Amino acid sequence: MQRIVISLDAMGGIDAPTSVVGAAFNVAKLNPRIHFLIFGSEDKVVPILQALSFPEERYDFVATKDVIQDHDKPLHAFKNGKESSMRKAIDAVREGLANACLSCGNTGALMVTAKMVLGTLPGVKRPAIAGAFPTYENKLIMLDMGANNECSESVIFQFALMGRCLAKVVLQIDNPSIAILNVGEEETKGRELEQKSYELLKSSGLNFIGYIEGHDIVKGKADVVVTDGFSGNLVLKASEGAINMFMTLLKEISKNSGLIALVGAFLLKRAFKKKLTRIDPNVNNGAMFIGLDGIVIKSHGSATTFGVTNAISLAYELANRDINAQITKEIKDLEERGIGLNFVEKIKQTSAKILGIST
Amino acid sequence: MQRIVISLDAMGGIDAPTSVVGAAFNVAKLNPRIHFLIFGSEDKVVPILQALSFPEERYDFVATKDVIQDHDKPLHAFKNGKESSMRKAIDAVREGLANACLSCGNTGALMVTAKMVLGTLPGVKRPAIAGAFPTYENKLIMLDMGANNECSESVIFQFALMGRCLAKVVLQIDNPSIAILNVGEEETKGRELEQKSYELLKSSGLNFIGYIEGHDIVKGKADVVVTDGFSGNLVLKASEGAINMFMTLLKEISKNSGLIALVGAFLLKRAFKKKLTRIDPNVNNGAMFIGLDGIVIKSHGSATTFGVTNAISLAYELANRDINAQITKEIKDLEERGIGLNFVEKIKQTSAKILGIST
Repeated sequence: MQRIVISLDAMGGIDAPTSVVGAAFNVAKLNPRIHFLIFGSEDKVVPILQALSFPEERYDFVATKDVIQDHDKPLHAFKNGKESSMRKAIDAVREGLANACLSCGNTGALMVTAKMVLGTLPGVKRPAIAGAFPTYENKLIMLDMGANNECSESVIFQFALMGRCLAKVVLQIDNPSIAILNVGEEETKGRELEQKSYELLKSSGLNFIGYIEGHDIVKGKADVVVTDGFSGNLVLKASEGAINMFMTLLKEISKNSGLIALVGAFLLKRAFKKKLTRIDPNVNNGAMFIGLDGIVIKSHGSATTFGVTNAISLAYELANRDINAQITKEIKDLEERGIGLNFVEKIKQTSAKILGIST
Repeated sequence: MQRIVISLDAMGGIDAPTSVVGAAFNVAKLNPRIHFLIFGSEDKVVPILQALSFPEERYDFVATKDVIQDHDKPLHAFKNGKESSMRKAIDAVREGLANACLSCGNTGALMVTAKMVLGTLPGVKRPAIAGAFPTYENKLIMLDMGANNECSESVIFQFALMGRCLAKVVLQIDNPSIAILNVGEEETKGRELEQKSYELLKSSGLNFIGYIEGHDIVKGKADVVVTDGFSGNLVLKASEGAINMFMTLLKEISKNSGLIALVGAFLLKRAFKKKLTRIDPNVNNGAMFIGLDGIVIKSHGSATTFGVTNAISLAYELANRDINAQITKEIKDLEERGIGLNFVEKIKQTSAKILGIST
């Protein structure tokens, strides 16, 4: 039985290292194939390992000195964090010691460090943050959720290709439908970026279904939604904010509205619980830094042990299915069909030739 | 008793003209000062007026031939819609026959037509869509919610000035706090647009509190949130989508989870109702096209009669308090303090002088 090794930055996140080590322990119990490389402060991590009686054959612990803080600037973290738990966890992937790495820490620092250490897959212009977005029935993949504030249409096109691969592997959909996030559904809506991206995707032969609006994402009208990292991050956080507001109101009512409401809330909660998992951030926890030459998973900083458990399971799944080999293969296949990562450049060259412009 | 006249485009919106005329009837009953100028198709509107026994002294009805459709392109609607109910309602404001106008129709067509017919207030570069955004406790004003996909920092700065005036009038706050929508709170976060806008607002002496993230909007950390129309529209719709998803799940559970959950839902709903008004789109209905030389209110196209009633009340409130005179006065005051609508140009000229560049 071939084992899958996940390297863990045990120090990032609000409840770390308790949540991270606890999650690893949970996953190890359920999955005999998984092995952990845990990086973190000896005095904080070892007591937790001991308290859990974490079986020694299921992990290697490496003591690290530094911790990347949430307020550290990405480049500073990369340059000065060589001895940090985050850096060591990424290094383990580059050195072939781990199949994937996971951190709940500083997103910007993790992205920049991972990009510098691992590099990108061949031909990929910009790695992106890709994650599951909660919908009524299924999940959908959205990218970019925050790695690139501003993108060109050719970068958006690459996001579509990579998101398609991720949806095939994670959502197990044969020919995922792709949509561009926009402020309207009509062809004329949006900025130049949306309109140029639309033209590219329309002529690509992919399963492109057009624009999707913010309120339609949750309806699951598309399997993959592409957008720049600024817009993706805004939409993700606005949805989180609205859902959290609803949950807080629900709790407030149960507490302050007397016995009748309390009984109501209790009865409803039991029925609600199953449905709520669809939109629980801890269930949907774990985003992939897609396009890197190595699997890096970012867990939400405020994820609970249960949340980190789900993110580790995602890391395992992507490593086990060798997502990056699949992305490379898929892109090669598309390349052969003339719509790979260099599709945009080819279109530009063709247009230039037709117009008699030398390139 | 001076009356306030509201001109209504009775034909825009999903439930129009029933919702629009019904809402006018509701408001007329409660507010003796209000008078309506109703524009719409005779065969559709008159039967509703008769069915409601709408007192004849409270309205004037003007039969119109055309209706702007939701799919009509804005410029086409402006050029070819001269006989439409929407156009006539706006014309009434320009001609001084109405103090404000309201439509539930095509947002783009309404914005372009209103801008062409009414023009902008002196010095205003771009009118914006400004509306209340639901939060836990209070309301906040957000702009732009969709009029300008792309903006410069000087336009964002003007949004802050206009939003500040609206918050003073509508939210009755003395010195409203202003924040810029962004993907993080740190000064280094965001695009060039956010960073340049940050510098301008920081040096303006206004009550500027920095950046605000999507999930913090609902916490009501600011009174006014400024952003470009693309981002504002995405965030607004994403929040709506998440809230609607929650409401739908709640309904589903009450229906399909047996008696216990049904009882629970019923009990909870009674307690929930009051709190839910905070986030009900029909309660928060009505956005102002701010910066125009005339009051134009856009109601949500899917607003119910109750929703349109709230939007008409907002139109009344803004007309009664003469919002545009207040914006003009406030901007003049700020102008005298050196931070008015031309603040940005002055800063640029000063920098140019210091740098020895001729302007």
